[in-house]
Amino acid sequence: MEEPDFGSMEITVVGLGLIGGSFAMALNKLKPKRIWAVDVNSSVLEQVEKTGVISKGFTEASIPLQSSDIVVICIYPELAVQFVKDNLAYFKNGALITDTAGLKEQVVQEISSVLREDLSFVGGHPLAGKESSGFAYASEEIFRGANYLITPIDGTKNESLRLVERLILGLGCRQPIRMEPHKHDEIIALTSQLPHVIAAALMNSSGSEDTGSFVGGSFRDATRVARMNAELWSELLLENKDNILEQIDVFTENVRLIRTAIAEKDQNSLKEMLENAGRGREKF
Amino acid sequence: MEEPDFGSMEITVVGLGLIGGSFAMALNKLKPKRIWAVDVNSSVLEQVEKTGVISKGFTEASIPLQSSDIVVICIYPELAVQFVKDNLAYFKNGALITDTAGLKEQVVQEISSVLREDLSFVGGHPLAGKESSGFAYASEEIFRGANYLITPIDGTKNESLRLVERLILGLGCRQPIRMEPHKHDEIIALTSQLPHVIAAALMNSSGSEDTGSFVGGSFRDATRVARMNAELWSELLLENKDNILEQIDVFTENVRLIRTAIAEKDQNSLKEMLENAGRGREKF
Repeated sequence: MEEPDFGSMEITVVGLGLIGGSFAMALNKLKPKRIWAVDVNSSVLEQVEKTGVISKGFTEASIPLQSSDIVVICIYPELAVQFVKDNLAYFKNGALITDTAGLKEQVVQEISSVLREDLSFVGGHPLAGKESSGFAYASEEIFRGANYLITPIDGTKNESLRLVERLILGLGCRQPIRMEPHKHDEIIALTSQLPHVIAAALMNSSGSEDTGSFVGGSFRDATRVARMNAELWSELLLENKDNILEQIDVFTENVRLIRTAIAEKDQNSLKEMLENAGRGREKF
Repeated sequence: MEEPDFGSMEITVVGLGLIGGSFAMALNKLKPKRIWAVDVNSSVLEQVEKTGVISKGFTEASIPLQSSDIVVICIYPELAVQFVKDNLAYFKNGALITDTAGLKEQVVQEISSVLREDLSFVGGHPLAGKESSGFAYASEEIFRGANYLITPIDGTKNESLRLVERLILGLGCRQPIRMEPHKHDEIIALTSQLPHVIAAALMNSSGSEDTGSFVGGSFRDATRVARMNAELWSELLLENKDNILEQIDVFTENVRLIRTAIAEKDQNSLKEMLENAGRGREKF
């Protein structure tokens, strides 16, 4: 396949939060013809226009969509689906649409089911983020070396898939990993959602005591993501209910096994469980 | 109180593992007259002597103890107690002894109960460490800005307490925090032991799947300390059994509350718990 000619393309980023803002910044590396942005907040658009990261911002999506070869949707999962439905008539003929939502099965299924024949959609999920949200914290650095999952389905055009992959590599991410949407949601429940649940539960366990002065690196690291965007994360957890409940149960059972070994002063079992964890962690 | 004249003092470090080795390195900043080391492993002693970090190493503690004004014991809690008992006759008259064990109540009580009248013991616990153990990973940097807990008891001489505090500040740590030994063990169950239990349980939950490519920062951070020294940590957890069991139960209950909100699709409660965690985390 030839290299895509990003220099002749117009790209629209929908949503200039942390991920969308970072995306817009990193897209500049590809030197596309234009980078447009859509956001509901006109003052954010003005501010970002001034930085030169985007050519122009719009609160009305229909304008930039009509000339955009690629559209990157960086808003909450439910809103992403709604955005495609609401603006279906405006997408440029043959445009490629991708998103960055942390859950894929429902988003991919709903968008695919309404998509015009000439359009392509490839779901994506950058494993990149920060504890703070909003454009003020955006940085192209969040993509550097980051894992990026994409979720093609039967019928996804090979050409669209390759274009998304080149785009992602161009941001500075690693070679994206392809997986089925339902598999994505299963895995992410373990590798991303469960650690967020744990961080919140651990933080909530510390009560009102001033533990700040007594914490070492272990508590600090384990609770880093407790500063999550509660609005977004409560939505993500509820939409992936079955998978996250299963992971919570597996985790709780593993905590229980360690608890039992401690309660029974069973040093051999305890040591074995700790060693097993250490061996697993060494692999990455 | 006058500044202690470290330049006239001899200091012995017992145990040249990660903490003892780092201690010996950082002690050089105080420019003491001599830094001795005691270890059971003569090849480690030879190796460290060559680096110039210590003046000389001994497998036989009686020799350096006789002239040491300060003795820093950096070995496992039970061994630390045994070391003091076994070498009680050799300590220099009026010497100050401190340790770095991650648990304090039992160590402080046992050492204090056998201590000679002329000697002082002040329990200490640097909240500093790494996932790897041994002198090869030692670095004075682990103390930079680290929290350091000390556990004086009734009868601890003010002069000894001040000397330990100056020593700790000299390593590059923050102003040490004084607390009762039993309080230390309670707090450390939450701020250090529980995160280690969680990291191990989370790692053990990931099963045999190759999750390495799918993890984002949240999983990586939450499992960092899973690469703990299993021998040491199984001992620490068992010796602090009642406190860690209580903390595990509080944590498990907080996980259960989040689980219930997800299972019942109760977005308000879920969001509230996540927000509460975020507010707590912002404080440090």
